[in-house]
Amino acid sequence: MDDTVRRHKYTLDEDEMPTTWYNLVADLPTPPPPALHPGTLQPAGPEDFAPLFPMDLIMQEVTQDRYVEIPGGVLDVYRQWRPSPLFRAHRLEEALGTPARIYYKYEGVSPAGSHKPNTAVPQAYYNKKAGVKKLTTETGAGQWGTALSFAAALYGLECEVWQVGSSYDSKPYRRLMIEAFGGTVHRSPSNLTAAGRKFLEDPANFSGSLGIAISEAVEVAASDPDTRYALGSVLNHVLLHQTIIGEEALLQMAKAGDTPTHIVGCTGGGSNFGGLSFPFLREKLAGRISPRIIAAEPASCPSLTHGVYAYDFGDSAGMTPLMKMHTLGHDFIPDPIHAGGLRYHGMSPLISHVYELGMMEAQAIPQTECFSAAVQFARTEGIVPAPEPTHALAVAIREALKAKETGEETVILTALCGHGHFDLAAYDDYLNGRMVDEEVSEARFAAGLSTIPPVPVG
Amino acid sequence: MDDTVRRHKYTLDEDEMPTTWYNLVADLPTPPPPALHPGTLQPAGPEDFAPLFPMDLIMQEVTQDRYVEIPGGVLDVYRQWRPSPLFRAHRLEEALGTPARIYYKYEGVSPAGSHKPNTAVPQAYYNKKAGVKKLTTETGAGQWGTALSFAAALYGLECEVWQVGSSYDSKPYRRLMIEAFGGTVHRSPSNLTAAGRKFLEDPANFSGSLGIAISEAVEVAASDPDTRYALGSVLNHVLLHQTIIGEEALLQMAKAGDTPTHIVGCTGGGSNFGGLSFPFLREKLAGRISPRIIAAEPASCPSLTHGVYAYDFGDSAGMTPLMKMHTLGHDFIPDPIHAGGLRYHGMSPLISHVYELGMMEAQAIPQTECFSAAVQFARTEGIVPAPEPTHALAVAIREALKAKETGEETVILTALCGHGHFDLAAYDDYLNGRMVDEEVSEARFAAGLSTIPPVPVG
Repeated sequence: MDDTVRRHKYTLDEDEMPTTWYNLVADLPTPPPPALHPGTLQPAGPEDFAPLFPMDLIMQEVTQDRYVEIPGGVLDVYRQWRPSPLFRAHRLEEALGTPARIYYKYEGVSPAGSHKPNTAVPQAYYNKKAGVKKLTTETGAGQWGTALSFAAALYGLECEVWQVGSSYDSKPYRRLMIEAFGGTVHRSPSNLTAAGRKFLEDPANFSGSLGIAISEAVEVAASDPDTRYALGSVLNHVLLHQTIIGEEALLQMAKAGDTPTHIVGCTGGGSNFGGLSFPFLREKLAGRISPRIIAAEPASCPSLTHGVYAYDFGDSAGMTPLMKMHTLGHDFIPDPIHAGGLRYHGMSPLISHVYELGMMEAQAIPQTECFSAAVQFARTEGIVPAPEPTHALAVAIREALKAKETGEETVILTALCGHGHFDLAAYDDYLNGRMVDEEVSEARFAAGLSTIPPVPVG
Repeated sequence: MDDTVRRHKYTLDEDEMPTTWYNLVADLPTPPPPALHPGTLQPAGPEDFAPLFPMDLIMQEVTQDRYVEIPGGVLDVYRQWRPSPLFRAHRLEEALGTPARIYYKYEGVSPAGSHKPNTAVPQAYYNKKAGVKKLTTETGAGQWGTALSFAAALYGLECEVWQVGSSYDSKPYRRLMIEAFGGTVHRSPSNLTAAGRKFLEDPANFSGSLGIAISEAVEVAASDPDTRYALGSVLNHVLLHQTIIGEEALLQMAKAGDTPTHIVGCTGGGSNFGGLSFPFLREKLAGRISPRIIAAEPASCPSLTHGVYAYDFGDSAGMTPLMKMHTLGHDFIPDPIHAGGLRYHGMSPLISHVYELGMMEAQAIPQTECFSAAVQFARTEGIVPAPEPTHALAVAIREALKAKETGEETVILTALCGHGHFDLAAYDDYLNGRMVDEEVSEARFAAGLSTIPPVPVG
């Protein structure tokens, strides 16, 4: 028996946790284009967002400050599970026979089992501070609804969640988790909103989409002065909160005495990817490190690699401000793949801008390759990953196998943004040969792209 | 907003993890009575266990040594998730309005989500070392089967799991988790074994029991020289491996600068309870601390508070050696309550002996009180507990509320031995008023007790 004892994780004490979030906008050569008011097509001001968000969050959305202090009340909650561990994937490396060193930052240790509480907690905190009584939101795979329900419970806020219909039907445990934390869950499209009732007129919409669920949650928030809306990805303030991941990982890679040559994160709306990569991008822009930064997106919903860079709505009903982003069209209905959390038609405007600036790459990964990576990871590292980060694992494995061929020194850092305890039906499909890959063709995306409104580029 | 930042967890570095397991037997005034061969009724020797376990584990079962060194290969695996965190439950204390300080050692960070890998890993390690090719086992709630499947994958062993029928039917995600790690799952009673076929003759046995599933797994192991059996609780070597929990907690309580007045653990077969409490019991026997040590068992399967202390079989078919333990009778079929992992007719012989020596107490808790505690815990501490440790949480809350009345200085340490991600159907029942308490009466237990064989007390 091999009795070698290795170091598997690089931890930080609570006291070592960073106390600021990082705002990449401060370090970019040009700022991202502003959101536009959908009526006037003029840049949207803070007052345009006020029915949806408390002013503290709106100010974070538009701040130019490089660092934003994390309030004590948020640090206090973060400190229950943060700093999260950074793992060296020794056993996966062995199984691949690669000389590459693979590290993963694991966010599955959070109460909701993903990175989402990193922003749910400050969002609930600032809403409570502003006197808000209730939060509404949407959830796809269920990670975000769980996180917001948890955060709302801590601050005594009500939480009402519109869960995408297909997810509501196939993931009862996700709904139960949200309810265990005290939240209320509605199947979307619902009869509770004008938007929901309108979408229900067409049976094709019955399975729902994130865009439809957002329309419902936004409508309810906008119509009640005591209620606000919370979004789990896409927006600047959400990505800002998630930078705690990358800031910790920077400190942990230093403890490991290693420097990443590849940083890989999965992208849906972009918050996990931005959270991991932005602090490293700051270091790269400053010339201190030079990693490739790679977004791994699902082949079924590839907004970066197959979308266009244009102004589009964030929701299906066209109620949100217009945002300049890589989009497949706000009416795009993705294939029912398993990585539900990545099935959003658009990409964070900030990440879209960074992509346009040539500061990062993107790869679209078919789902069977993701699950092949997931099973190999589970059986070596012992953690069953959520479907979302398996896209990043697949890219990490691609790069690790390349290193085996080329012998090039390769140090991969990826984000394992959540566990897959509520996604095992997808593993069942994969292990029993019922999973097929997505169709990826121009024809597949033509209908969605045709719905993008003809807005003059800002 | 309250912006106080508190310390929530007491962590240890990998380097600070204890490198020995602790054997309580070395410090007891009298040794526990030996297991008996079911045919001869003479004390069972190592050779009697050899068809089931590798010799390293048999030697650990009977060792008198105070400390057993943890092999490097096991330490290396432990170090992925261990040392596990010790939390201070600040928000639960606030919600209870209690002056008591409540700490919980959290084992849900392990790959399987419970304390079970602490023994699954060394059991797989020693079996691999002995040249074994396949492990068989039973699983009730599913925690143990998941843990053994994970451990077997690491060492390249096959793993075959008999899952109690009612659990197999109601918890498909547990089966899928075992399969994701590479294990094979059979519904028990199965047609694959003589024992299973015999039990299936009576339709009353269709929902299965741990005792039946053990019979099946033991039968398969005993009939194949390349296969051994692994047990997830009850036996001395299992409790030995679990003492890593208490050894770490001792170091962490010292870091917290606090001394427990109450140590509370849930008991099914006893491994989680023994793992937490034995190192503290060592300190108590040495006169260094004086905590009350309390076992929390389910009212539906209360072997300590309603069983008898007698020699009985470990399985339903009567294939195992006879063990002196608190038992409800090896034919006892518990009510179908949700804390499936605690539904074993017997109690670890070592814990039974400690209980007879008056070194600990026991309380039986009805399930609605458990889930009331669970929901309060989830909504304050942010972790949805497995049903098993909610028994201990209920006792912790009882004691914390007593402290509020009496003002007595109370420091409670409990083990949160797993998360409830696969048990949310039970939360659904509780939150929607479908959960009722168990019948606890002499009549309820009479049938089971009558099946205990008339063996002369050793």
